[in-house]
Amino acid sequence: MLKVLKFGGTSVGTLERIQNVANIIKKIKDEGHDVIAVVSAMSGETNKLIEYAESFSKEANPAEMDMLLSSGERVTSALLSIALNEQGYKTTSMSGREAGIITDEAHTKARIEDIDTTNLKNAISEGKTVIVAGFQGVTINTNRVSTLGRGGSDLSAVAIAGAIQADICEIYTDVDGIYTTDPRIEPKAKKLEKISYDEMLELASLGAKVLQNRSVEMAKKLNVNLVSRSSFTPEVEGTLITKEENIMEKPVVSGIALDRNQIRVGMYGVTDKPGIAASIFTSLADADINVDMIVQTRGLDGTTDLDFTIPTTDFTLCKSVMEKFKSQSKNIDYNENICKVSIVGVGMKSHTGVASKAFSALATENINIRIISTSEIKISMIIEEKYAELAVRALHEAYNLDK
Amino acid sequence: MLKVLKFGGTSVGTLERIQNVANIIKKIKDEGHDVIAVVSAMSGETNKLIEYAESFSKEANPAEMDMLLSSGERVTSALLSIALNEQGYKTTSMSGREAGIITDEAHTKARIEDIDTTNLKNAISEGKTVIVAGFQGVTINTNRVSTLGRGGSDLSAVAIAGAIQADICEIYTDVDGIYTTDPRIEPKAKKLEKISYDEMLELASLGAKVLQNRSVEMAKKLNVNLVSRSSFTPEVEGTLITKEENIMEKPVVSGIALDRNQIRVGMYGVTDKPGIAASIFTSLADADINVDMIVQTRGLDGTTDLDFTIPTTDFTLCKSVMEKFKSQSKNIDYNENICKVSIVGVGMKSHTGVASKAFSALATENINIRIISTSEIKISMIIEEKYAELAVRALHEAYNLDK
Repeated sequence: MLKVLKFGGTSVGTLERIQNVANIIKKIKDEGHDVIAVVSAMSGETNKLIEYAESFSKEANPAEMDMLLSSGERVTSALLSIALNEQGYKTTSMSGREAGIITDEAHTKARIEDIDTTNLKNAISEGKTVIVAGFQGVTINTNRVSTLGRGGSDLSAVAIAGAIQADICEIYTDVDGIYTTDPRIEPKAKKLEKISYDEMLELASLGAKVLQNRSVEMAKKLNVNLVSRSSFTPEVEGTLITKEENIMEKPVVSGIALDRNQIRVGMYGVTDKPGIAASIFTSLADADINVDMIVQTRGLDGTTDLDFTIPTTDFTLCKSVMEKFKSQSKNIDYNENICKVSIVGVGMKSHTGVASKAFSALATENINIRIISTSEIKISMIIEEKYAELAVRALHEAYNLDK
Repeated sequence: MLKVLKFGGTSVGTLERIQNVANIIKKIKDEGHDVIAVVSAMSGETNKLIEYAESFSKEANPAEMDMLLSSGERVTSALLSIALNEQGYKTTSMSGREAGIITDEAHTKARIEDIDTTNLKNAISEGKTVIVAGFQGVTINTNRVSTLGRGGSDLSAVAIAGAIQADICEIYTDVDGIYTTDPRIEPKAKKLEKISYDEMLELASLGAKVLQNRSVEMAKKLNVNLVSRSSFTPEVEGTLITKEENIMEKPVVSGIALDRNQIRVGMYGVTDKPGIAASIFTSLADADINVDMIVQTRGLDGTTDLDFTIPTTDFTLCKSVMEKFKSQSKNIDYNENICKVSIVGVGMKSHTGVASKAFSALATENINIRIISTSEIKISMIIEEKYAELAVRALHEAYNLDK
């Protein structure tokens, strides 16, 4: 098999851990596989370089930031290559440029435009293990080093796996897979063997931090079989993220997610004239505020009540945007003490009664649901934050996720 | 003027010093010059990376070492570019590859084969100050990053200055020029305004550590006007290293050099048969031992005495090579307590009595000369090490270098 492995900053955070990663690759090579490993910078390195740059300028030229930040992954790739080479394996490091990762010109948040797999294929056919500096590429027109932004090394790995048609792309972090819910909240949480791309996308956007949406989206698009597993416990099988068709037994519910970083905005007694909601949400969108759940209800006096949620980070900005709509409603209030619990599962599509089971489970615990929103494979509910853990455990049990 | 400036590791050793370098460049830009600055890694960075690599392997693949070691200069070039950009100047960093530095395939000690000045010229014509990551290039056939070995950043600067026909190449270190002798030994030492390439080469090979021979040789070959000056006292004019023709008043003696890292090997009563000396020095050369001064004297009994000097670092190696010649001489001894003082000056060529003045000066101080060797522009003498400082001061005074 041709395996693309990706090791994050924590997995290569010290020289000992780089040696540990070399041992993981050695074992996979000894099983007869070809390996392309994509590495992040040693944890802390990128932040150190950002601090250096900020000491000179708060708004450094993005192209120069890329020259700066891309250096950390080059160091790790060379070190891992040296460590593995010492164990008797033919290796070569490759920068993003050498690995053929071609991006657009959007420095510090470049998008991959193309992958030229010539160098990678040549190295593999020469029996070499390739260690690619993740997070970086080369711009298509100006031919300068670019970086891919947050989660960029995962993206490098998935894009390479897709382009070179690898059999699998394993993302090594410090957690050993995707769980039915956060084990710190519900110790009975179970590691999932498989999960579909869409479920993973919902879970990721709902707060599961193991994999980022950009990489899962790309994996889905390129049909790359992703595995989430840990470099600290490499003997543990991780979770396979794959096409829905590859999952034979589709559970009704795969996981419960919790997102505490939400604020509920309530706007009461809004003059009910056409276009008012559009005008509010356009203004919020213009300010780059990511409005999540929206509920609109008609009051008795012909006015309208609007409830919606925004990320905590946009709180101050949101308040200033809402200022201009003050005159068009009786009252606007903000509630920080809420959270969002969500149920995710592809099986929902073909099952009835999923939502009612959730509502009952929360009702049994006397938890009041403030806002509900649903998609094909997800039900999200806004509740008071003090009930967060209780709600997660109640739902986890209601859907028998500990079985 | 188009100026190429080079800043060594000490000059960019901290964020404050990088800011200081930005201020130096700003001043030169404000005087109306175009600037290409070549930078080393922040001092300590390269050694740190070498230690990292050695923790994995004592004989790391040279190509991987180059991937590793080239990262430090990239960081400095980006940071300096950001710092200068913040002051309102258009800047761009360039890796060795981007600056068009093309080398042979000898990783970790590559030689520059060619410089493609296209990118440099374009950037300059767009009014940009270019900050080049020194010490590195790209291999001509395999297209991988290479490094130029010791003093590589100086080489990058000189080669760029030559290729782009810069008016001057200023090498900034922590000393403000070339002195008539080491000021720590002779406080009356004077900074030279100008010195010829050949004199500089002699002084450098005799222990003056400001500039390395490879860069001075390249400057001579490419006819680049070099200046040695300090980034810590940029207001002080440095020393110009240039063609002999550019120096109107040629001093008889320009400087006195001292080299303590020499060992004298004495081989007495060598059977005087043809080829014996050749055989000894071939063996030493095969072992890569750099034999410096050689004196051969005929003894009264028809045998020969051989005296020569080697660098201290080759002592152990030399002893093992000499082992096989033991039977062909009465005695071999080694003297570590010697040093070499040298007088350098282009004016020697056209003046007589230069050597005898040196011998008298040492004789007056009762310093015995063990070996003498001369070239067109240099007289070197091996003396007992305890007289080192005294000899330097005596010679400095004899040639009126403090005037």
